[in-house]
Amino acid sequence: MSRIETDSLGQVEVPDQAYWGAQTQRSLINFAIGKERMPLAVLHALALIKKAAARVNNRNGDLPADIARLIEQAADEVLDGQLDDQFPLVVWQTGSGTQSNMNVNEVIAGRANELAGKGRGGKAPVHPNDHVNRSQSSNDCFPTAMHIAAAQAVQHKLLPAIIELSSGLAELAVRHQHLVKTGRTHMMDATPITFGQELSAYVAQLDYAQRAIRSALPAVCELAQGGTAVGTGLNAPHGFAEAIAAELAALSGLPFITAPNKFAALAGHEPLTTLAGGLKTLAVALMKLANDLRLLGSGPRGGIAEVRLPANEPGSSIMPGKVNPTQCEALSMLACQVLGNDTAIGFAASQGHLQLNVFKPVIIHNLLQSIELLADGCSNFQQHCIAGIEPDPEQMAAHLERGLMLVTALNPHIGYDKAAEIAKKAYSEGTTLREAALTLGYLTNEQFDQWVRPEKMLEPGGKG
Amino acid sequence: MSRIETDSLGQVEVPDQAYWGAQTQRSLINFAIGKERMPLAVLHALALIKKAAARVNNRNGDLPADIARLIEQAADEVLDGQLDDQFPLVVWQTGSGTQSNMNVNEVIAGRANELAGKGRGGKAPVHPNDHVNRSQSSNDCFPTAMHIAAAQAVQHKLLPAIIELSSGLAELAVRHQHLVKTGRTHMMDATPITFGQELSAYVAQLDYAQRAIRSALPAVCELAQGGTAVGTGLNAPHGFAEAIAAELAALSGLPFITAPNKFAALAGHEPLTTLAGGLKTLAVALMKLANDLRLLGSGPRGGIAEVRLPANEPGSSIMPGKVNPTQCEALSMLACQVLGNDTAIGFAASQGHLQLNVFKPVIIHNLLQSIELLADGCSNFQQHCIAGIEPDPEQMAAHLERGLMLVTALNPHIGYDKAAEIAKKAYSEGTTLREAALTLGYLTNEQFDQWVRPEKMLEPGGKG
Amino acid sequence: MSRIETDSLGQVEVPDQAYWGAQTQRSLINFAIGKERMPLAVLHALALIKKAAARVNNRNGDLPADIARLIEQAADEVLDGQLDDQFPLVVWQTGSGTQSNMNVNEVIAGRANELAGKGRGGKAPVHPNDHVNRSQSSNDCFPTAMHIAAAQAVQHKLLPAIIELSSGLAELAVRHQHLVKTGRTHMMDATPITFGQELSAYVAQLDYAQRAIRSALPAVCELAQGGTAVGTGLNAPHGFAEAIAAELAALSGLPFITAPNKFAALAGHEPLTTLAGGLKTLAVALMKLANDLRLLGSGPRGGIAEVRLPANEPGSSIMPGKVNPTQCEALSMLACQVLGNDTAIGFAASQGHLQLNVFKPVIIHNLLQSIELLADGCSNFQQHCIAGIEPDPEQMAAHLERGLMLVTALNPHIGYDKAAEIAKKAYSEGTTLREAALTLGYLTNEQFDQWVRPEKMLEPGGKG
Amino acid sequence: MSRIETDSLGQVEVPDQAYWGAQTQRSLINFAIGKERMPLAVLHALALIKKAAARVNNRNGDLPADIARLIEQAADEVLDGQLDDQFPLVVWQTGSGTQSNMNVNEVIAGRANELAGKGRGGKAPVHPNDHVNRSQSSNDCFPTAMHIAAAQAVQHKLLPAIIELSSGLAELAVRHQHLVKTGRTHMMDATPITFGQELSAYVAQLDYAQRAIRSALPAVCELAQGGTAVGTGLNAPHGFAEAIAAELAALSGLPFITAPNKFAALAGHEPLTTLAGGLKTLAVALMKLANDLRLLGSGPRGGIAEVRLPANEPGSSIMPGKVNPTQCEALSMLACQVLGNDTAIGFAASQGHLQLNVFKPVIIHNLLQSIELLADGCSNFQQHCIAGIEPDPEQMAAHLERGLMLVTALNPHIGYDKAAEIAKKAYSEGTTLREAALTLGYLTNEQFDQWVRPEKMLEPGGKG
Repeated sequence: MSRIETDSLGQVEVPDQAYWGAQTQRSLINFAIGKERMPLAVLHALALIKKAAARVNNRNGDLPADIARLIEQAADEVLDGQLDDQFPLVVWQTGSGTQSNMNVNEVIAGRANELAGKGRGGKAPVHPNDHVNRSQSSNDCFPTAMHIAAAQAVQHKLLPAIIELSSGLAELAVRHQHLVKTGRTHMMDATPITFGQELSAYVAQLDYAQRAIRSALPAVCELAQGGTAVGTGLNAPHGFAEAIAAELAALSGLPFITAPNKFAALAGHEPLTTLAGGLKTLAVALMKLANDLRLLGSGPRGGIAEVRLPANEPGSSIMPGKVNPTQCEALSMLACQVLGNDTAIGFAASQGHLQLNVFKPVIIHNLLQSIELLADGCSNFQQHCIAGIEPDPEQMAAHLERGLMLVTALNPHIGYDKAAEIAKKAYSEGTTLREAALTLGYLTNEQFDQWVRPEKMLEPGGKG
Repeated sequence: MSRIETDSLGQVEVPDQAYWGAQTQRSLINFAIGKERMPLAVLHALALIKKAAARVNNRNGDLPADIARLIEQAADEVLDGQLDDQFPLVVWQTGSGTQSNMNVNEVIAGRANELAGKGRGGKAPVHPNDHVNRSQSSNDCFPTAMHIAAAQAVQHKLLPAIIELSSGLAELAVRHQHLVKTGRTHMMDATPITFGQELSAYVAQLDYAQRAIRSALPAVCELAQGGTAVGTGLNAPHGFAEAIAAELAALSGLPFITAPNKFAALAGHEPLTTLAGGLKTLAVALMKLANDLRLLGSGPRGGIAEVRLPANEPGSSIMPGKVNPTQCEALSMLACQVLGNDTAIGFAASQGHLQLNVFKPVIIHNLLQSIELLADGCSNFQQHCIAGIEPDPEQMAAHLERGLMLVTALNPHIGYDKAAEIAKKAYSEGTTLREAALTLGYLTNEQFDQWVRPEKMLEPGGKG
Repeated sequence: MSRIETDSLGQVEVPDQAYWGAQTQRSLINFAIGKERMPLAVLHALALIKKAAARVNNRNGDLPADIARLIEQAADEVLDGQLDDQFPLVVWQTGSGTQSNMNVNEVIAGRANELAGKGRGGKAPVHPNDHVNRSQSSNDCFPTAMHIAAAQAVQHKLLPAIIELSSGLAELAVRHQHLVKTGRTHMMDATPITFGQELSAYVAQLDYAQRAIRSALPAVCELAQGGTAVGTGLNAPHGFAEAIAAELAALSGLPFITAPNKFAALAGHEPLTTLAGGLKTLAVALMKLANDLRLLGSGPRGGIAEVRLPANEPGSSIMPGKVNPTQCEALSMLACQVLGNDTAIGFAASQGHLQLNVFKPVIIHNLLQSIELLADGCSNFQQHCIAGIEPDPEQMAAHLERGLMLVTALNPHIGYDKAAEIAKKAYSEGTTLREAALTLGYLTNEQFDQWVRPEKMLEPGGKG
Repeated sequence: MSRIETDSLGQVEVPDQAYWGAQTQRSLINFAIGKERMPLAVLHALALIKKAAARVNNRNGDLPADIARLIEQAADEVLDGQLDDQFPLVVWQTGSGTQSNMNVNEVIAGRANELAGKGRGGKAPVHPNDHVNRSQSSNDCFPTAMHIAAAQAVQHKLLPAIIELSSGLAELAVRHQHLVKTGRTHMMDATPITFGQELSAYVAQLDYAQRAIRSALPAVCELAQGGTAVGTGLNAPHGFAEAIAAELAALSGLPFITAPNKFAALAGHEPLTTLAGGLKTLAVALMKLANDLRLLGSGPRGGIAEVRLPANEPGSSIMPGKVNPTQCEALSMLACQVLGNDTAIGFAASQGHLQLNVFKPVIIHNLLQSIELLADGCSNFQQHCIAGIEPDPEQMAAHLERGLMLVTALNPHIGYDKAAEIAKKAYSEGTTLREAALTLGYLTNEQFDQWVRPEKMLEPGGKG
C-alpha cells in the first residue's frame, strides 16, 4: 500500500508505513549504490538540531508553540531510536547530505502530522521545509550534525575506550616493573629493560594519541548552524547561530559554540580532517602495540615466547591445539582501515568548491567508522588480550643471560672498540661474553661481575 | 533457548536457532568490534569450496558418499541464500579468516546433521573439521574464497557496469560528434573541440581502466586451495589442488586454476593488490568524469552551462528550484572511498609474516566494497545522469565565437609571436580577435575568414 | 688519494678530502639507492646535539675541557654550513639513522682532530663514539634531531609563510568586503555573498590549519635524548636528559624539554604523525583555495571569469596569448604531494618493533619535504597570485542579476513551494525571477522590489 | 653578466651562461618552491621528441633541412647529458609541464642558434616555438615525455633489477630446497616447510609484481604526441601522430605507438596510474620479504635466529658488536615511500579538468622516484643482503623438533579433536608431543614414529 507525497518536482508514491516524503523516496530511487547507510549518529544529530531549532524559532516568534511542540515530540522519538527504520538512505547520495536532512525533516513532519491527527506524512500542519527546517539549510544542518556526531562519538565512546586500554596497560606495567628482560632494537637483542618499562611505552604512545584527539575537539565543537545556504545566514534571524549553539550545548552536554566563520564551516572540513589525523595517530600506536605483542608471544617453541597471550579460541581448522594472537590481528586490521579512511577523508575534504564542500557524507561515514572501530578495538583488546597476558619469566631470564649486548656496560670502562671485539668474539665462537672477555684479557672475572649487571643497566647513571 | 557445542577449548552455549557451533560463538563473544560483517560473497564462496571439496574428497575415497551428499546439500542451501542469517561474524576477527571458515564448516555440518535427522548442530555424522574441512585449512580456503568472490564480482557486476556506462557515453558522443564547442585546458578557454570528441575521452579512459582490471584477473583466478596450512599441502592428497580448481571452475563458469606457488598464495596478496590498483584507475577516471560534468553543467546563469544534467530531485532544503549535480557528487564520493580502500589494501597486503598474511578479512572487505561501489556507481550514473544529459548548443556557440584561442590557427601563417599580440590586444581591450587582428594589420579581413574557422580546427591538418 | 679509517668491522678506504670515517664510507658503498639525501636540517640538528652534549658532558666531568672545546668548534662549523658537503648519505640507509649519526660523529671528530693538529679524520684525540657520541646513542640522537629539525622548520619557515598568505587574503577580503556577487554551492548558482565574505573563508580555513599545526608542536618539543640505546638511559649519567634538553632549548630558542617516557620516544613517532596530520589539514585547505581561484578565474570568455589572476608568464607553447592559473597548479600539486607524504609517514610510523622504530629517515624526509613545500607554496602563492588578484565587478554584477536563487528571499513571505515554482518557471522559460513571479501572481512588483534585494541577503536577519 | 630574452609578455634578463630564454627564466622567478627538480629523464625524453619532430617535420616539408639539422644536433647534446645543467626548473611549476617543455625548446633553440653562429639563445634562425615546438604543444609533448621516461625506466632499470633479485632468491631457494624447518602462521609455529619452499614464495610474489608491471606497459607505450593543444591535433599535419610515434620507437627501441584517443591522453593519466598500481604491488612484496628476513634473522640469542644476514657495518653507535638488518630497513622504508607516492599519483591523476590534467609534473616526479627506488632497492638488496644470507641448520632443527604442530599429521589417523588434546597437553606440561600422545594412549610409540615425520610433511599426499 502506498500514498502520494509531493515536492517541487511533483508527485511521488511512498510506502504507507513510511513517515518520509517525496524527497526521501526520490533519493531511494536515484541512488541505488552500495549498502552503506548514512550513520544513525548523523540522523540523530540532525534530529537534535531540529529540536533545538524548534525551540529557538519558537522563542524568536518564528514558529507557533503548537508546531514547535509537535516537532520536539517527533524529534524526541527519533532521538529515542523509535524511528530508526525510517532512515533508509545511503552514504552515496548528494554530497551536501541534503537528502538525509530532508529525510529527517520529512520524518519529523510526517510523524508530527500524525501526532496532530492528520495522518502520517504530508506537509500540514507541520511542513518539512517551512517549519522543521525553519531558519536552516541542509548546508548548515548537515555539517553541524557531522560535528555533533563526531564530538559525541569521541567523547562518549573513544576517549573512555582509550583510557580503558591505557589503564590496563599501565596496571600490567606496574605489576611487572622489576621484571628484567632483553631489550630489542632493529628486532635484534639490545641492552636490558624491564617488562614494565616496555609496557610503559604503550601507555605513553596512547597518551600522545589522546592528546592529538583531544586537541582536535575544540574546533569540532564549533558549529556551522546559522550559516544557512552559503554562510551568510540568509533567512535565519539575527542571533540564531549563537542561540542554537547554546541550545545544542545544553541538550547534549558538550561545549558547542557557533563557528566564528560560517563560510569556512560550510565550504571546508579542516576540523574533521585534523580529528582524522588524531585518529590516525591512535591507529599507528595500536598497530605497534599489536605487532609487538605478537612478536613477544611468538612461538610457543620456535619464537620469542616471552609472553603468553590468552587462548580465546582454537586457532586453526587444520592444526590442532594451535593458539593464535587473534586479538592482535583484529586490532591491526582495523588500524589499516583507519589509515585507509584517513586517505579518503583527506581527499574528500580537499575537494570543496566555492561555498560548499559536497563530500560531506563520505567524510562523516569514514570518520565515524574509524572512531567506532578504534573505540571497540581498544576496549575489546583490553578485555580479551591485555587482561589475560602473562609474561614467561624463565624465558626472559634465559634470553637475558645469553644476550651479547650486555657488553654495552663496558663502554665507559674499556671503550667502544674493545667492547665490540669481545661481543664479536662471543658471537662468532658461540660463547658467553665473560668467556670472550677473559680470553681477550680486557678485564678480570671480578670486573666482569662488577660491571656487567643487567639489573643495574635499567636507568641513567646505572654504570654499575 | 540454547544448546551446548564443544571445540578443543571446551563447551560453549549456542542459541538454539543457530546452525553454527562453538567456534563461531566464541568469535561473536571475543570480537565485539564494529558493524562490518564478513561479506556474504566470501561466505558463499567458502560454501562453494566446501561443495567442491566434498566432491573431490569423495572421488578420492577420502569421504563416504553419504557424508559428501549431505555436505553438498547443505552447501547448496548456503549458496541459495537460505542460510544468510547464519553468518554473523564481523570483519575484525582473526586475520586468517579462520573463524569465518569455521562458521561455514559449522553451519554446513550443523545443517547436514539436521538433514541426517540428528538434530541441528553437533559433529556427527558430519564433522566440521574432519569432513567439511577435509583436505583443507582455513589458510588455503580463505584466500581461495577471496579470489573467487573478487573474480565473480568483477566478472558479473563490475565489467558489465563499466560497459553500460561506457556504451552510454559512446552513444552520446556519436550523437554529438559534430557539435563544435570551446575546448578548455587549465580550466581556461582553448582551441575548439566537438562535444563528441570531448565525450570520447571518457570512453577511452574507461577503456584503460577496463584493461587494467581485466589484466589483473588471470592472477586472481589462480587459487590457493590445496596448500592447506603452510602451503605444502600437508593432509591434502596428491592432485587435490588441481582437482578442486577444476571443480570450482566447472561450478562457477570462471577460469580458475591452481596457483603455481601455494606458499605465495597464502602469504602474499599481490594478485588482489594489483586488482585494487585497477579499481583505483577506474576511480580516477570516474572522478574526472564527474568533475567535468559538474563543471560543464555549472550555472545555470553564472557558470559554464554548456550541458544540462537531469533534474532528478529538488536540490536544496532552503533554495527553492535549485537543481544540483547530485549524481556527480555520489560518483565522486565513492571514488574517494575507492582511493581510501586502496590505501588500506596496500598497507594490509604488505603486512604478511612468514607463511601467512593475516590481514585477509580487511583486504577482501575493502576490495569487495570498492567493486560494488564502482559497479553500482557506473550503472547508476549511466541511468540517472548520462542518459538524461542534454547539451546547450546556443551556449556552446556563444562561448566559441567569443573565444580568443581561435588565434592559434594563425600560428602557421603569421607565427606564434604576432598571434600572441593579437590575442592579448583583444583580451585587454575586450574586443574580438578579428578587430584586434585588423587593427594590428597582421592580416586582412579575408584572410581572417579563411584561416579562423572553428569547424576546420578539429583535426590534424585542419589549418584552414 | 685516500686514507685508511677503521671501525669494529675493520679497515675502509676513505677519500682524502673527506672528514668522515669508516662507517660513513661503508654506508656509501652499501646503500646505493636513489638520490634523496638525508636532509641537511637533520644533520645540522645532530651537530647541535653534539655541541650540547659536549657542554653537558664537560660540566658533568665526563669529557675533558679541551675535547669538549674541539667538539664544539667543529660542530659550529657544521652548523655554519661550512661542512655541508661532508654528509653524502641517502635517506635509504639503516632505519635508525645510525649511519647519519655516525656521519656527524665522524665528521666532527675528523675535523676536531684536524683542528688539534693531528690530520683529518681518525679517532684521536677526539673519538667519534667515545667522545662525540658520549652519553648518547643513535637511538636517542636521531629522533631528537628529527624533532629539532621539524620544530625549527615549522616555527621559522612554515608558520610565518601561513601568516603571510593568510594576511594577504585577509587584506584582500577587507578591500572587497562590500562587493556583492553570486554565491555557489554544488558549483551551481546560490544566494548572494560578498567577495570579501568568500575570501574570509580561506583565512578561517588557514586558521584551522594553523591551530592543528601549533597544537602538534608541544609534543614535538619533547626530546628523546637521554634514553640512549633502548630508552633506559644506560651509559648516560643521571640528569643528562634534562640537562641536554635545557641546553638545546637555550641554543635554539625553542621550548624543548625532555620526553616524559623515553621508551615511547624511541619506539614510536606519534608526535610527528600528529604533526603530519596538521600539515595535511593545511594541504586540504590550500587545495580548495587553489581550486576555487582557478574556477573563479576561468575563462576569460567561456568561464566564470569573476576574478583575474596575474599573468606571470605565457601559458602555452602553442596557443598564443593564453594565460593560465599556474600558481594554483603548483599549489595544488604540492598539496597532492603532502597527502602522499602523509600516507608514507603514517605507514612508517606504525611499523616500529619493540624498543625502536626503524623507519626514522623516511619519516623525517617526508615530513621536512612537506613542511618546505607548504612553506614555499604559501609564500609563493601570496606573492605571485594573491597579491595580483583583481575582481571583475561587471562580471560579478551580471551573474548576480541573472541569478535565480535570489528567490530564496521569498521563502519567509510566500513559502518554499511557491518560491520554487517561480524559480522553475523562470529557468525553463529563460526569463527573470520578477517576470515569473508576476506572471504567477504570487506577489506584486513592489513586493518584489522590497523583498528581493541582494544587498540585504548577506547576513542573518536580512529578510528585506 | 646577462643578456635580454623576450617572450609574448616582454623582456627578461637571463644569465649569460644560460642557453635558456625568457620563459624558463620567468619560471625560475615565479616558482621558488622546494628543491625537487623536474627529473632529467623527462627532459631527455622531451629532447628525444624534439629530435623526432624535427625529422618528421622536415620529411613533411614543414621544416627546412638546415633548421632540422641544427635542432637534431642540439637535441643530441641534450640526450648526451652535455646540457644537464640547463634544466633548473622545479616540479612545482605549471601543471601542464609547459615551462619544462619551453625550457627544452629554448635550450635547443639557444644552442642551435649558437651552433649556427648567431650567439647563444635568441629565436633566430631557430625559433623555440615556431621551429623546435613545430606541430607540437606542451599538452601533447609533456605527457608523451612522461610515458617515454616511465617506459624507459621500467624497461631498462626496474625489470632487470627485479630479475636480479628474483634470480638471487631462486638460486638460494634451490640451494636449500631440502632444508626442513618450522613453518609459521600468525607468527606462531605451524607445520614444517623447507627453507627452499619458504624462499620460493618470494620468487612467486616478485613474479606477480612483474606481471602487474609488465601488463601496464602497453598502455604506457601509447603516446599523446599529435594531439597538440586539446587533442584534436590542430596545427599538426595529417599523419604526424603516427609518424612521430614510429620515429620515437625507432630512436628508443621501445614499442611506442600513437594513442588511439588523444583527448584521453591529454586529459587523463590512467596508464600511469595503473603502472603506479603495479609498482605498489612490488612494494608490497618487498615489504614482506624485508620483514620476513628480519624476523628470521632476529636474535642472535633472543630471537628466531634461523638465518644470518651479512654483517655489512657496525650496527650501533653505543652497542658494540651489534649487527642489524639494515638492508631490510632500507628496503622497507622505500616500500613505504612507494605507497605514499601511489597515493599522491592517484590523487593527482583524478584531478584533471576538461581537456587537460594539470598535475603532470607531480605525477611523473612520484612515478620516476618510485621506479628508481624500487630498481635500486631490488638490486642493492640482492647484492648486499640475499647474496650473503646463510641459514643456521642447527637452530632450524632445534625449533623443528620442539614444535607442537607436527601433531597435524595425526589428523587423518586419530581426528582433529584428539590431536588437539595431545598438543594442548604437551604445551601446558612443557613436554614433547610423543610423551603427551603416549600418556593419553591415543597411539603407540611405533605409530608416532611412522606418522610424525617432518620430512614427509612437505607436500600433498605426504601423510606418512
